[in-house]
This record gives sequence, C-alpha cells and structure tokens, in this order.
Amino acid sequence: MTPTIQSPDVGLLVQPLVEKLIDEKDSLRVKVDKGAMGCTLIDCGIDTAGGLEAGLLVARICMGGLGTVALTPCPSIAKNWSWHISVHSRNPVLACLASQYAGWNLSTKGYNALASGPGRALAAREELFKELAYTSNHSTAVLVLEVDKPPPEELVEKVTRDCGVKGNQLYFVLTPTSSLAGTVQIVARCLEVALHKAHALEFPLSDIVDGVAHAPLPPPSNDFITGMGRTNDAIIYGGNIQLFVKGSDGAAETLANTLPSCNSKDYGKPFSEIFTDNAGDFYKIDPSLFSPARVVVANIDSGNSFHAGAIDEAVLDRSFGKKS
Amino acid sequence: MTPTIQSPDVGLLVQPLVEKLIDEKDSLRVKVDKGAMGCTLIDCGIDTAGGLEAGLLVARICMGGLGTVALTPCPSIAKNWSWHISVHSRNPVLACLASQYAGWNLSTKGYNALASGPGRALAAREELFKELAYTSNHSTAVLVLEVDKPPPEELVEKVTRDCGVKGNQLYFVLTPTSSLAGTVQIVARCLEVALHKAHALEFPLSDIVDGVAHAPLPPPSNDFITGMGRTNDAIIYGGNIQLFVKGSDGAAETLANTLPSCNSKDYGKPFSEIFTDNAGDFYKIDPSLFSPARVVVANIDSGNSFHAGAIDEAVLDRSFGKKS
Amino acid sequence: MTPTIQSPDVGLLVQPLVEKLIDEKDSLRVKVDKGAMGCTLIDCGIDTAGGLEAGLLVARICMGGLGTVALTPCPSIAKNWSWHISVHSRNPVLACLASQYAGWNLSTKGYNALASGPGRALAAREELFKELAYTSNHSTAVLVLEVDKPPPEELVEKVTRDCGVKGNQLYFVLTPTSSLAGTVQIVARCLEVALHKAHALEFPLSDIVDGVAHAPLPPPSNDFITGMGRTNDAIIYGGNIQLFVKGSDGAAETLANTLPSCNSKDYGKPFSEIFTDNAGDFYKIDPSLFSPARVVVANIDSGNSFHAGAIDEAVLDRSFGKKS
Repeated sequence: MTPTIQSPDVGLLVQPLVEKLIDEKDSLRVKVDKGAMGCTLIDCGIDTAGGLEAGLLVARICMGGLGTVALTPCPSIAKNWSWHISVHSRNPVLACLASQYAGWNLSTKGYNALASGPGRALAAREELFKELAYTSNHSTAVLVLEVDKPPPEELVEKVTRDCGVKGNQLYFVLTPTSSLAGTVQIVARCLEVALHKAHALEFPLSDIVDGVAHAPLPPPSNDFITGMGRTNDAIIYGGNIQLFVKGSDGAAETLANTLPSCNSKDYGKPFSEIFTDNAGDFYKIDPSLFSPARVVVANIDSGNSFHAGAIDEAVLDRSFGKKS
Repeated sequence: MTPTIQSPDVGLLVQPLVEKLIDEKDSLRVKVDKGAMGCTLIDCGIDTAGGLEAGLLVARICMGGLGTVALTPCPSIAKNWSWHISVHSRNPVLACLASQYAGWNLSTKGYNALASGPGRALAAREELFKELAYTSNHSTAVLVLEVDKPPPEELVEKVTRDCGVKGNQLYFVLTPTSSLAGTVQIVARCLEVALHKAHALEFPLSDIVDGVAHAPLPPPSNDFITGMGRTNDAIIYGGNIQLFVKGSDGAAETLANTLPSCNSKDYGKPFSEIFTDNAGDFYKIDPSLFSPARVVVANIDSGNSFHAGAIDEAVLDRSFGKKS
Repeated sequence: MTPTIQSPDVGLLVQPLVEKLIDEKDSLRVKVDKGAMGCTLIDCGIDTAGGLEAGLLVARICMGGLGTVALTPCPSIAKNWSWHISVHSRNPVLACLASQYAGWNLSTKGYNALASGPGRALAAREELFKELAYTSNHSTAVLVLEVDKPPPEELVEKVTRDCGVKGNQLYFVLTPTSSLAGTVQIVARCLEVALHKAHALEFPLSDIVDGVAHAPLPPPSNDFITGMGRTNDAIIYGGNIQLFVKGSDGAAETLANTLPSCNSKDYGKPFSEIFTDNAGDFYKIDPSLFSPARVVVANIDSGNSFHAGAIDEAVLDRSFGKKS
C-alpha cells in the first residue's frame, strides 16, 4: 500500500539546528554577523577556523534536518584515509534532493553560488520541485553556500523575493571549499550524489525508499581546484553507497550497473586533472562522473541485491596529497 | 563490592522515545492510529514506508531506553554488506532481557505475536522476571510486535489486564519482518541474543556486567521466510559480540566456547533452508543456533579474554540475496 | 585571517553533562554521594558497576563539553579487539589540553590524583594555561580523578581554595583504572595524548586546527598495573590519529615523523613490562612513549599530508590478555 503520511517541512525541521549553530557559535568556532537587508551570515570557515564538527552540523542543515551525519573511523576502505563521513536519512529523497542538492543557481556577476538547504524548497524555482511535488512553507529561509565571501546585496534581494521572506528571516551558512567544515559538508553529499544520478538515469524517485552512504574525509587544500577536486574524488573514487528500492529486478540491476562513477568516460584520474584537461570548464566534464565509486542496489520487493563499482585507493592517494 | 543503585524503570525511560516516534511521525514515515480499546498503534512499515532511521528508534524503544543503537559503516567484516547495526547499553541485562527480548507470547488464533519492549516488565508474566527480580511500575505500557497487521481486540484486552493499564495507556509499535524498520530492530538484537543464550547456558546473569555487539544489516525481503532468515543469519553468521563478565576464568572460557552459533548442529547454511528442512517448525530447530557468530568474553576479575567462533561471509552472501 | 570568536567556557559547557550524569545515575549505574566540605562525589566504578556508557559520558565531561566520544566497531585495525573509542572535538586544543589532560597534580600523602576536567581551567595552576592564555570563570568546578577511593578532605579543601568555589560547588567524578568507565575515559585520551606530545615537541598549539583519533578498547583488569598498562598500550600500539595543522610543510612533516610512539626508546613491549623494567617508577619511562601508534598530519595550508608510525597488533594481543 502507498504511504499516506504528510511530508515534513524541511524549513521547520532545520530551525533548531540553525539556532544551535548560532547559540553555540563560540564552541563551534563559527562567526555570526548581519549581512545585506538584515540577513544573518554564519561564517563556518572564511574568517574563522570552523572545523570538522561545525561541518557535521552544517551537513545536517543541508539535509533539512532529515539526515544523520557522522565522522567515524573506517580504516579498511583506503588505508591512508581512516576517517569517513557516513550518512543516512529519515527520508533520503526529500533530505537529499529537496534540500541538500546544490541546485539553485544564485550566481551573479563575479559571485558564483549554487545554493543548498531548505530555503530551496521555499523558493521552489527549480524544475526538480515539480517532480518532487514538494514545497516548504516555513517562515524563515536557510541556504548553505560554498563560497569564500558574503553574498552581495543583489543575491540577497533575489532570495528574499523568491522565498517570500524578509531579510531578517533569511540565514546564509557560508562554507568555503577549502575549509574543514566545507570539506565535511561536501563529502556528506555522497548519498545525494547517488540520488541525483539515479534521477538523471530516470530511475523513478518514488521507488527509492532508503539509502546509506559513506566516503573518506579528504584533507582540505588551500588551493581551490585541489580542494574541490578532493571532495569530488572522495565520492567518485571512495564513496560506498547502498540504496533500497522498489520495483523490478531489471530496473534495480540497471541502476546498479549504470550508477557507479566508473561508467564515466572521464573516470580514472583525480578530478583536478580532469578539470584542467577540460580547460577548467565544469560543464565540459561528463556529468555521469559525479557518482559514488561503489554501489549496492537492494530491491526490497524481490529481496535481491545488485553490486557494482569499486573503491580506487590509488587515485585517492594521488588526489589527497599523501607526501609520506 | 556489590552495586547498590536503584534499578531504573524501563517504562519510564522509554516514554520520551515513544513521544518522539509519535511527534516526529511524518519525518520518520510512520503512521499513528487508534486501535482496539483506544490503544495507540504506531505502524513502522505495514501501510507506510518507515525506514532505517525509524528502525533505529524502535530498537532503542525495544531496549527500554537503556540502549544505544547505530547504523555504521563496517565494510571489513563481510565485504558485500558494508553497513552494520551496532549496539551497546547502559545496563545490558535489563535492556536486553527485561525489555528487548521478544519473550511474551501474545499469540491468539490466527495472530502470531511475541511481544518485546518495556511493557513486558509491567506484566511480568514470564518466568525470566523472577530471575531478574525486576518489574516496571510505569503508568503506560509499550510493546513492540513483529507483525504485519494490527493486534486483535482479544490481544489488546489481555495486555491491558496483564499490565494493569487502560486501553489509552497502551502503545503498540508494529514492525513487519519484511520492512526496513523491522530488519533494523531485529538485527539490533545481536547483544540480546548473546545474553539470552548465556542465560540458557546457565551463566549467571548477575556476572554479566557489560556488552557490545554488531551485525551486518541484511536487505529486507518481501518473502517472509527469506526476510526472517536473513535477520537471523545476520546474527548467526555475521554477529560479533563482546561480553564483560565477572567470576572465574573457567566460567568465562566455557561461556566463550559454548556461546557461538557454530556450536549448533544446525549451523552452516542459511536459516531459511534450516527452517524448510525442519518442515517450517521453528521449535524443531536447535535453539543453540540462535547466537552470534563470533564471541569475546572478557573476564574483568582476571583481566583474561577468551575468543571463539568466526564470521561466515559465504553463508551471508547466499542468505542476503546477492545477485551481482 | 585570525579567528576572533570568543573562547567558550568549558565549565559552563560541562554543566549539563554533569547534571545528566547525576540525574540518570540509576540507569548509568553510578552512585552519587556527598563528600568532604559538602562536595559531590560521583562514583563511576568504585562501589558500583558503572560501565562503558558511563565512561563515554565521563569522557565528554573530561573534554569540557567540547568533545564527541563514541564506542564503535572497527574490526580491521586489530582483529581480536573489534571495538574502538573514537574521538573528535569542536576545539581540540581547548578540549584536550585546557580540560581533558590529567595535568593538575592533587596528590597528597597516600593519595595519588592527577586531576582532569574543566575545573583545571578554573584553578589554572599549571604552566600550560599561560601558554593557552585561557581560564574558566564558571561558578562550579568539575574534576575527574582516576582513583579508587574518595578524595581526602585536605585535597578537597585545596581545590575549593584554588578554584575559588565553595564545597557544594565542587564535583568529583571518580573512575578507577580497573573499571569499565575508567578504561573508556582513559582510551578517550588518544587525541589529547597526541596534542600533549605535539606540545612537548614544541609544535605551536595555535597551528593545530583540528584532530580526530581512535584506539581499541582494552578489557579492564583488576590488577592495577595490568589495567593501566592496557589503557596506555591501546594508544601507544593501537592509537590512530590525524591532526589538521597550519604552517609549513617542514613543520608538519617533522611533527608526523616525531609524534608516533615508535620514536621512543622504550617502544616495543607492553607498558606493564616497561613499567616493571623501570622499577615501577613512572618518571623513569621515556615520556616520548606516550603517543599514538599511527599518525597523519595534514597541512591545510599546503594541502599535503604526512603519514608515520604503525599499529602493532602483536603487542596489543600480548597486553590485552588474550587467552584463547
């Protein structure tokens, strides 16, 4: 039978997590300021140390309060990178696609920003929300931006308009790619990346019932391209995910076989090299690369499981900057 | 010296967890309804998706609020089944035997139900409670049933009578064997299964001071016997437990040697096959099979540890439905 | 840019954790009594069972409310000792050095006690606090003592004086070395031990931005020297840590190479044997031994990582009392 429960509001669920991030700013080493139009800026690594634990809380905010994110020892996957970010969720499709996916392009001249977080569901400007048939109606908007400076007034104004909130009801969580918190919250997208690719492969989202994922924590790099490359490589060459789906075994098996990153023509070297080889143009890179290394698709209707892909420890070592 | 602290009331400890399950029903994808005599029915996978995180909360309810249950990556035990349910407790004997053990037979005509949870200690109808010298005095009764339909009025009435509560003070948490939540809460019994077998082997419960356990999460199966088989196999062939005991080294070593499932004459093939070979009669199966695969007994009086048993990855692969 | 956030007060942060330990004493199997001058004594394993979960909460108290401590399966590091204590922190330098480090010598005639916990930062009697430029101003003092009897009045009086609190504002958490809670809270020092040695090696504390650590949980022993030896060996031969630092690659590489325990001339056999070989004089043992087995130093300024050291499973087996 079909579940008939109400969808939870990711905006409402995230409220206590944002309050925690603000209230506990000193111990979490984050800075809270006012920005344009009276919005709240929570700096998790631009002008402050932030750290791994701040990143874990940001990751839960990204997931709309529907996710569990842990930093856990898992030395058997890649012996030089013992610590993993592990992720599961009360409702993976909503958590990952309606909130965590950095799908709302807020870039303005000279400022690149793809917004993540529950505020996306308030604006619902993306095509994806029609397919999800989901919107948030919360009174405040929370967005996470992977940036290294505060958003310009033009961006803030657009968000207030699209989300239907006042400036003082708007919260931006800022996590640079090169920061510890930024690294954690990106690698925490290992489940989201899998769901997004499943969606791109036209697997029905309503057939994805649950999912779990983990990927190694790369050391951050001050160099933007290196740092970005590592967070991608953590998932592409080190991500290990399992989806629990409904439907036919044929569909489950096809999903398992097509989901892992090894299906991409660009697979096989660190992301920063792929990026450079594509003249630094993100959109020239084969989108099917953005996917976990290793996949299990368990069909809960049949009870059968399909495995594909593999961890590539050698690429992780090259990417993650192991010097000795 | 002997501890002289008061025993905690598992009924009281579980109250906030049941409230959480009800309050957060939408995000946990569970359904809350009224049943016979005004009791509350919390459906975690019959007519709703439920999911892994709902199962983790149900497992904590089963353990009377005295347990910690996590879903954690542990890919080194069985390479195709990376995720494990890990369990420890503030008070393993009370959590596992006075609450989690599905020891109260509430089956009525056409309805099989072995109740788990703190309500058992309120009724205290089982012999075990005399040995534990433990009862609960809480004003509400919470029971977890591994079933796929709501309990009949006859059962509800018996429970109100035996627990001394009114219908509106009674909560049933329903988790089918084939559901994700059901699978989680059953595998979370890996520590309980060890304690129950230790008790069957007549090891004094008062000498069991602490314990930890983990076992791989099997994919659920829509087929009841397959699904039930897998949850048993997760523990029998994949369960890894450690007990901390008092007493003599002789008693500790004997416990270690006799505890693992490999001591059973039925050991060696998936549980569903054993079940079929025994004509589908659960009670014909050697009860000593129900035990973890691998055991460490650490004697805290002597400081010596005794290891026995082993993980059997091949049987896990056969049982868990690996198709590719 | 330099972080400009306020330092959190470890005394304030620890308050709810101490209240939890007291309020939930029965389920955590700890005993709460009044001691000299009306101070509160929380016995976690002298005259009561305590247990692993009590130890996890004590470890968080030791870390001044700034740490996350988990008991997690990690069977790939040392196959006979599957469970690890894993640790990370919102602010490792403050958590570990300003609070967790057992650096305040409160020993009096016939009573050996090195105090750990946030009360140290209230008294700030140690040289270390000048370097940290940190003090606590909280109204209550919490200290953790690794002892097997309550502190004498002389000690209590000194603490009230040095901390500037009244007796009824003073809390002692007591965890014997041979207890389960004691074992957990000592092994939870795996990150602290690394920071302390980094400090001894004159690596600038202000360049240590973050850190993670895990080490196997040894079985406790009733014999003091054996038990103490095992908790040390868990870190010295089984501890696996990663620091995230700023500064030059030269400094990071030197730290990685000099940090692991294998740099000590005493390295190579169980700690209890080293202790005996040094005529039971703790201060004759090479202090550089007190360090994790395996180290990664990731320089977040350069993005380069330096690995050194190794787990020694054979010494762990000898130390931890594996009999079969």
